[in-house]
Amino acid sequence: IESNLPNVGTTIFTVMSALAAENGAVNLGQGFPDFEGDSRLVDTVADAMKRGLNQYPPMTGVPALREAIAMKIDALYGHRYDSNSEITITAGATQAILTAILATVHPGDEVIVLEPCYDSYVPNIELAGGVVVRVPLTPGSFRPDFNKIATAITPNTRAIIVNSPHNPSGIVWTRTEMLQLQELLDPTDIVVISDEVYEHIVYDGKSHKSAACFAGLAARSFIVSSFGKTYHVTGWKIGYVAAPASLTAEFRKVHQFNVFSVNTPVQHGLAAYMVDPKPYLDLPAFYQRKRDLFRAGLAKTRLRALPSEGTYFQCVDISEVSDLSEADFCKWLTSEIGVAAIPVSAFYGSGFDQRVIRFCFAKRDETLASALSRLAKL
Amino acid sequence: IESNLPNVGTTIFTVMSALAAENGAVNLGQGFPDFEGDSRLVDTVADAMKRGLNQYPPMTGVPALREAIAMKIDALYGHRYDSNSEITITAGATQAILTAILATVHPGDEVIVLEPCYDSYVPNIELAGGVVVRVPLTPGSFRPDFNKIATAITPNTRAIIVNSPHNPSGIVWTRTEMLQLQELLDPTDIVVISDEVYEHIVYDGKSHKSAACFAGLAARSFIVSSFGKTYHVTGWKIGYVAAPASLTAEFRKVHQFNVFSVNTPVQHGLAAYMVDPKPYLDLPAFYQRKRDLFRAGLAKTRLRALPSEGTYFQCVDISEVSDLSEADFCKWLTSEIGVAAIPVSAFYGSGFDQRVIRFCFAKRDETLASALSRLAKL
Ligand SMILES: CSCCC(=O)C(=O)O
Ligand SMILES: CSCCC(=O)C(=O)O
Repeated sequence: IESNLPNVGTTIFTVMSALAAENGAVNLGQGFPDFEGDSRLVDTVADAMKRGLNQYPPMTGVPALREAIAMKIDALYGHRYDSNSEITITAGATQAILTAILATVHPGDEVIVLEPCYDSYVPNIELAGGVVVRVPLTPGSFRPDFNKIATAITPNTRAIIVNSPHNPSGIVWTRTEMLQLQELLDPTDIVVISDEVYEHIVYDGKSHKSAACFAGLAARSFIVSSFGKTYHVTGWKIGYVAAPASLTAEFRKVHQFNVFSVNTPVQHGLAAYMVDPKPYLDLPAFYQRKRDLFRAGLAKTRLRALPSEGTYFQCVDISEVSDLSEADFCKWLTSEIGVAAIPVSAFYGSGFDQRVIRFCFAKRDETLASALSRLAKL
Repeated sequence: IESNLPNVGTTIFTVMSALAAENGAVNLGQGFPDFEGDSRLVDTVADAMKRGLNQYPPMTGVPALREAIAMKIDALYGHRYDSNSEITITAGATQAILTAILATVHPGDEVIVLEPCYDSYVPNIELAGGVVVRVPLTPGSFRPDFNKIATAITPNTRAIIVNSPHNPSGIVWTRTEMLQLQELLDPTDIVVISDEVYEHIVYDGKSHKSAACFAGLAARSFIVSSFGKTYHVTGWKIGYVAAPASLTAEFRKVHQFNVFSVNTPVQHGLAAYMVDPKPYLDLPAFYQRKRDLFRAGLAKTRLRALPSEGTYFQCVDISEVSDLSEADFCKWLTSEIGVAAIPVSAFYGSGFDQRVIRFCFAKRDETLASALSRLAKL
């Protein structure tokens, strides 16, 4: 059988998690917590199941959950979405992004991605028959370069995918950068797919600047988020998309024939739970402590920590430690030192290697300590 | 924004469920039970959550669940799939079918569908850039016409979607029909997508003839099934695909960038629960009693019941009752008589109207009695 994705192998996250398991390594590769979410959230979901909420939910999502999301976005970002026509529950953020692309990208349309970028974006565009236009973030700083983005825009540009807080770099776009994006797109009809799954994990007293904060962006954006990262339940596979009614209508045409709908009891449980903002308001402090603990340990090694402004990722420069490629270094680190990480080159189509690898610090303190004591050997 | 699916509206199931709710009608439209599944199954899932199984599962699915599925297929259909390389857990059957199509259909490839067919198939093919080739099942009997299928095959035919037990008709393909399909495809490299979500619901002492039962079909088939129909939990949105390793490899390339993976605690719960075959072995008798009860009631009306050999659907001919189109009759029946049904014309691209509508009898006896007493007015 001829492949529709001839250049695609198994996602780097699965490959590195398997290698970590094989080698009994501390897994700081794939991004997921090794601790549990709130038992009250588990209880609300179990409760929904026991109350018999186990049949198809509405295709668009359980109304109470959609409304809770609309209220949260309004409270945090000052934009009021209509929960009936502008919010859709998805089986995670990845499904949301593929669905948004299938709904809006026509064969031959160009879609801009800012590299390094999450490894699903490019295959998603290819599946829609779109043309991938790769624009690098500034090497070293990972900040957007609006001159480069401007140059990449053509009359065929249908969409741009942006991602802040940014995976893998941990960079968070500033208000000025979001305004620059808005201004740049203003004369165009380009659709924005804004991957904001780490929206609640921003450090140092700063706050996430959602595309929803900017009227000109909100009017052209699919805003994608996820509950897995926020509530420490990555295995529940549930997220959402907020977008103007016209975009949402196209989104739902595809969504209904992709997954149709998303696990009913999980939706009811989240609807009840997320009314309380405290869990996500407490999240930055929770993870900042872990970030700082991890960075303090790294400071004792020859790995040079880059800024981590948000997400639960910490990138490090390996150039003082090794001449191996990022990919080979990550394999070596996993098998010989016993700590798994992700090569940032896996987030570039060209495999561009700037001597940077990514650690996930969403781990128990003991796990971080154990990883750090192994890394101290470097 | 220009639509990628210009001819698509909201799925008929959502439309009719909304109309039923608006009119307080007994909803025999969208296919889902109005009773609960086994509380032991709910308990195993709640238990998995409480044991902390809430992070990403393997992309391909939880190994114990994949192995339980492989063992079931071997026991029932005599084909041993390798659970590592040939079984993948999906977020329901619809996601499985879209993913299989995106993985195998290249732009311009032809895909044969047998009408009437489930309403996701055609938009799924269109999203992949495929060319839809519609072949009617025999009007009246809904049996496959292999001469017609043979005529539709060209060198560009990449895939055929088959579905037995068949939604909406309730027809179950015989061993002879499956052999005819196998023989017809033998000289070709056409891929089969075999939608078998009602595999455990076959009546009158007959048994489901899975594509897995036939070596020549198994070698070219994606076999798609669902847990929602079998265990009365349609809202859990979980199913699976069994396919030879080469097809599975292509499937997973797309799957990992669609949903990535499926709810972890639900997978663990099902893995523990499905080891016992009794629940699905008891299913035919359970639903056959409901089918017979519903048919006995219909016999007192001027709706003429067609055969229902499997599934939880009962089609009826409305020609003695009304001159309205199927679609208008279903609306009228919902608002004026208070019983929702699905027009079979919604399963045809042309809207072909043969005066047949579909009822779902996966309902409590009281619900069926209440629907029947309303239908008695006809
Ligand atoms: C879906 S597995 C990848 C998890 C993740 O978001 C990451 O590690 O970047
Ligand atoms: C996903 S809603 C449709 C349920 C169903 O399979 C049917 O009614 O045919």
